[in-house]
Amino acid sequence: MPKRVSGSVLVTGASVPERYLNQLRAAGLNVVNPSASFPPDILPESELQGLLADCDAYLLGGDEIASRSVLAAAPRLKVIAFLGVGYASFVDAAAAADLGIPITNTPGVLANSVAEFAVGELLAARRRIVDYAVDPRLSQEKCRDLSGHPVGVVGLGAIGTRVSEILTNGFGAQVHYFSRSRKPRIETSLGLTYLPLPKMVDQVEAIILTVPDTPETVCMISKDLIAVRRSPLTVINLGRPEVISPRALEWGLRNDRIESVWFDDYYRDDEAGVTELRKDPRVKVTPHIASLTHDARDAMSAMAVASLLNILHSGTDPHIVISDAY
Amino acid sequence: MPKRVSGSVLVTGASVPERYLNQLRAAGLNVVNPSASFPPDILPESELQGLLADCDAYLLGGDEIASRSVLAAAPRLKVIAFLGVGYASFVDAAAAADLGIPITNTPGVLANSVAEFAVGELLAARRRIVDYAVDPRLSQEKCRDLSGHPVGVVGLGAIGTRVSEILTNGFGAQVHYFSRSRKPRIETSLGLTYLPLPKMVDQVEAIILTVPDTPETVCMISKDLIAVRRSPLTVINLGRPEVISPRALEWGLRNDRIESVWFDDYYRDDEAGVTELRKDPRVKVTPHIASLTHDARDAMSAMAVASLLNILHSGTDPHIVISDAY
Repeated sequence: MPKRVSGSVLVTGASVPERYLNQLRAAGLNVVNPSASFPPDILPESELQGLLADCDAYLLGGDEIASRSVLAAAPRLKVIAFLGVGYASFVDAAAAADLGIPITNTPGVLANSVAEFAVGELLAARRRIVDYAVDPRLSQEKCRDLSGHPVGVVGLGAIGTRVSEILTNGFGAQVHYFSRSRKPRIETSLGLTYLPLPKMVDQVEAIILTVPDTPETVCMISKDLIAVRRSPLTVINLGRPEVISPRALEWGLRNDRIESVWFDDYYRDDEAGVTELRKDPRVKVTPHIASLTHDARDAMSAMAVASLLNILHSGTDPHIVISDAY
Repeated sequence: MPKRVSGSVLVTGASVPERYLNQLRAAGLNVVNPSASFPPDILPESELQGLLADCDAYLLGGDEIASRSVLAAAPRLKVIAFLGVGYASFVDAAAAADLGIPITNTPGVLANSVAEFAVGELLAARRRIVDYAVDPRLSQEKCRDLSGHPVGVVGLGAIGTRVSEILTNGFGAQVHYFSRSRKPRIETSLGLTYLPLPKMVDQVEAIILTVPDTPETVCMISKDLIAVRRSPLTVINLGRPEVISPRALEWGLRNDRIESVWFDDYYRDDEAGVTELRKDPRVKVTPHIASLTHDARDAMSAMAVASLLNILHSGTDPHIVISDAY
């Protein structure tokens, strides 16, 4: 039986299911949960400031921004539990560090949902499932199995590892990977081959991009990389769109170096008419849904609630984020 | 080095790649290959009769019908190697038996391609990949992973077994199966659970139908079976459309017992307006492409060529079909 805590917790967004709110209530907290619509409205700064003023804890599940001035006006705040991984776009981490408010996040829990989605897109691409389902009269072409065929996984974090597991253990595909650092244990256990990125892009039939948002991954897939291809490449991008250089995309489609490309979100800024390419039937765009499962969202809620209560109880938690701000 | 044979072989259809025709030539045969277009024209009976009159062997890869009168007019014919499994719709097997002409087919080689396609459709259905790729502005709903979730496989032949392998070994799904006979060895090695069909349909989130075309499988998925569902079921049908009762389909969609249904071919005869249901966005139809891969078609060609040469060399082959006609 955990110690009881007291005070109020602000829960934003609409993805935390009622049973996790009840866990917070059962621990002794008063739950303030202003938005129940889905997708929820984004809280304006003034409203967030008012809501947080009396709160001891903050489960950040919405798309609002917890700025320095918001945090500075929340004298009782002891923890920000961020629902997701990329907290830095939503919380001023430097301000939280200055104010001594720990931030937690929920790493790893999305990996399986995102990996399953990626494999679904890969199969849809290879077997033209979307194209035929839309128009069964399409001219028929022989496709290719996954079993025994070379597929490249770029990035071998939790998502890339799970994708590799499904492709090797389930389908018997031949998985090559590229990652900033080699991962010998995963290589051995799954039978993966490490290849430098240019060599991998040259040798595989499809690549699955699972790289994080860092300055190094911007335009990681360049025109030079795909120009060497002798046959069109299938590209599944689970990261932000900018991992693929807009110029490479435009050139690759025009010169048949790209067979199809799958984005789970699309470029916000138009560059060289790249927004127009969205109309190309080889460009498939889904609305940032790779992690939108009950499974992932429940696991995120469970982890965020546990971290939040841990910090209120004991001041510490394994998921406190290590930030440059500290 | 195999013994050389002589005479002519008729190869129909357009799916036998050139390198397999070359194997026939290398063995000493003159290859007659009238149709090179894809999809090929169907040979009329009179033309087929003319082509077969002087042939020693027949690799049946087209959609033509080898009737009794065609076979009776082919006095030199020593083997019919059928490219596929369901030879009975294309060859008069009783006539072939009467004339002492063995028929071979190519069982099992399609299993992996069809199974991968089925898993692709299952993921597309569960994650709404087709719907979102067509309209990214669709309202977002939380979906479900495969990992840890119950899926039903109906039929545990080569295709059903491969589907089960991918779902368990790759995704960690919980696979229940129904089959005419229990398969204890596969159950144990893959960790499957056998359930009677009504219980399975009640307990799983999705079913994958991999049953052969027999009188027993017509309308196997009936209205009674799906009426007990408390939540909508995803149905992936790899068999002919009639495995699902048209009445059950219509009722199930109208009463939200079916979440989506995937056919790789559609009913030919309209029954109770079922052809109209094709326009329902929950009904997805692809044009009989589950086995249309280089992998499967190459393996079929290799097997058919090997069987054909075996029979010309030795009069026997492991893939001679056992037919009621014998």
